[in-house]
Amino acid sequence: MALQLLRHALVSLLVVAVHAAGATRAGGDMHHLQMVTSTAGTARAVASCASWRLGVETNNIRDWYSIPAECRSYVRDYMYGDLFRQDCAVVAGEAAAYAEGLELAGDGEEVWVFDVDDTTLTNLPYYADTGFGAEPYNATYFDEYVANATAPALPEVLELYEKLLSLGIKVVFITGRHDDEEAATVKNLRSAGYHTWEKLVLKPSSLGSSVVPYKSGERQKLVDAGYRIVGNMGDQWSDLTGAPEGDRTFKVPDPMYYVG
Amino acid sequence: MALQLLRHALVSLLVVAVHAAGATRAGGDMHHLQMVTSTAGTARAVASCASWRLGVETNNIRDWYSIPAECRSYVRDYMYGDLFRQDCAVVAGEAAAYAEGLELAGDGEEVWVFDVDDTTLTNLPYYADTGFGAEPYNATYFDEYVANATAPALPEVLELYEKLLSLGIKVVFITGRHDDEEAATVKNLRSAGYHTWEKLVLKPSSLGSSVVPYKSGERQKLVDAGYRIVGNMGDQWSDLTGAPEGDRTFKVPDPMYYVG
Repeated sequence: MALQLLRHALVSLLVVAVHAAGATRAGGDMHHLQMVTSTAGTARAVASCASWRLGVETNNIRDWYSIPAECRSYVRDYMYGDLFRQDCAVVAGEAAAYAEGLELAGDGEEVWVFDVDDTTLTNLPYYADTGFGAEPYNATYFDEYVANATAPALPEVLELYEKLLSLGIKVVFITGRHDDEEAATVKNLRSAGYHTWEKLVLKPSSLGSSVVPYKSGERQKLVDAGYRIVGNMGDQWSDLTGAPEGDRTFKVPDPMYYVG
Repeated sequence: MALQLLRHALVSLLVVAVHAAGATRAGGDMHHLQMVTSTAGTARAVASCASWRLGVETNNIRDWYSIPAECRSYVRDYMYGDLFRQDCAVVAGEAAAYAEGLELAGDGEEVWVFDVDDTTLTNLPYYADTGFGAEPYNATYFDEYVANATAPALPEVLELYEKLLSLGIKVVFITGRHDDEEAATVKNLRSAGYHTWEKLVLKPSSLGSSVVPYKSGERQKLVDAGYRIVGNMGDQWSDLTGAPEGDRTFKVPDPMYYVG
């Protein structure tokens, strides 16, 4: 514990040095705070990137288009650091403990729903190239990234996936990726270690952009077909809200973007 | 920003020193990790109190009875520190911006639902005396605390309350406090600065302990009576889940206890 804290303290000091250098390059204006525009159109300063991140993770901050500019290095350090790994380990660990504690019927109808992007697979390589959520979404580049099918697994979620399969829970992927990306998605899931699944549901290209009706509608189809959704995991609240949510939901941390 | 980070780094170093001292007193076992028991009965170590807190705030960690023993000083420092204040400011600020952006009918039927304990009022004085959530809940002492009617307002929420009233949104308190605590609750709300409200709903003493059916049922009664719940704010997910949730929910940070 003490060594870990010491390490964190030293990282913080390093971050101070980096920030001070950045502020010098930017003309020494260390108190400049980027304004963000909320849903309501009110410009407000971000007092703390940590508090901003908590606000995002708890679904208190919604409908945002990019991370606050002054949180770019904070988000980068978070995504590459121990805390993101530990945050992922907590959610995957809680999910595994929950699944292990279930009294399963073992009739093959118990399923776990996973989102794909930044849940089973991580798009950190794409976001690292585009400002960790600070730069506008680049659809062309992201489509290329998906087509390359090289997204790594989020390791904690891959471990959970193996645990669920070993318990006899089937896996269903419901993704906002479009149906014309099926081949690349199948290839990427397999190469990342997700070797089997009950269903992979992609979004019809004809469908609009609203995620909650699409994903909750697909969950309803699973229930109508006789499946029982024992768990539902995603990095966006729009993966998790809207009936039927599943018996329990798990929010994977993601401070890089918002999908409503 | 740099000064703030430097301060955080120095606080971290101080925490290192305190932990190292504690470990020495405990016989040098710096790697001892208190085990916590999850819902599923699986004992797991807490790798990071910050990740544990995020897990609690995102509703990933549920059904816990006390904070992990090794997070006692972490929770104390958090509750007394800048981060809790900033976390509260973010949620209250988002709520205020959302409310300001609403097109209100102004017909007197628009209401905002607040939980009481650790939302409008803070019970930090009680928790400071009982280990910040590390010691078992002391019903006798807590009842005394409630009867004393001295709980301070959570300042960021009081400010939001004033904003909502100024916009013409009425306030409804729905609390898990029992109806025999009405007089003390009224006295405490008033002395803390909450001078007016549309309704104060307390739990009938006859009702069981399950919060979600009680609170969602009371929200349904509001809707049935013609009110429109434009916002719903609480420190527990059991304040916020269960239809009708309200048009938007706001989770106030609270790492000290869990009410399911």
